Amino acid sequence: MAESEAVCPERLIMEHITSRWGTLVLITLLDRVHRFGELRREIGGVSEKMLAQTLRTLERDGLVHRDAKPVIPPRVDYSLTDLGREAAEQVRGLARWTERRLAAVERARGAYDATRP
Amino acid sequence: MAESEAVCPERLIMEHITSRWGTLVLITLLDRVHRFGELRREIGGVSEKMLAQTLRTLERDGLVHRDAKPVIPPRVDYSLTDLGREAAEQVRGLARWTERRLAAVERARGAYDATRP
Repeated sequence: MAESEAVCPERLIMEHITSRWGTLVLITLLDRVHRFGELRREIGGVSEKMLAQTLRTLERDGLVHRDAKPVIPPRVDYSLTDLGREAAEQVRGLARWTERRLAAVERARGAYDATRP
Repeated sequence: MAESEAVCPERLIMEHITSRWGTLVLITLLDRVHRFGELRREIGGVSEKMLAQTLRTLERDGLVHRDAKPVIPPRVDYSLTDLGREAAEQVRGLARWTERRLAAVERARGAYDATRP
């Protein structure tokens, strides 16, 4: 257990679901169940290792369900749990807000920078 | 400009508002205007330097308004802009969700860890 987990456990959940890949995994799984390779293609730019680690973290938090089918070749499906669906909806709201307000934030940054040497 | 700002600007806004101190500053300012020292006391555990840096970042993004009164001793008030209020409400929703669901996440972690060597 990391120190931050002991000190402020809510903080750690928030970090998992708002992390770069955590956010994208949750939002992508809101649509439907995905296999590992599908998730990786859909998200784009994520290494196999990072995606596996992100999924393990979200699975441990009870947000993602990992279903390994006993077939050959192996098949693993990832889906949201009920808890994960709630988290994903919160995070999607935040992501949509940042998209909607991006231009306003960029204008503010330009104005701020213009007043500084 | 950091590379991530060029590549995915929404991402950077999200990182600012969901950062440990960014989140707490936004939620605290939802209540009312605060002076620097008041913010620092109310948030707790944040260094002067980190709080100043967090406020500058949020000010640059157009989320926080800094009002330096021309008085002696100097007085600086921090408040949310309209854009900052929207961001703060999104982030408060997410923070409340993590508080409400903390026990469920902790149960999931315990169950996950119990099945691993």
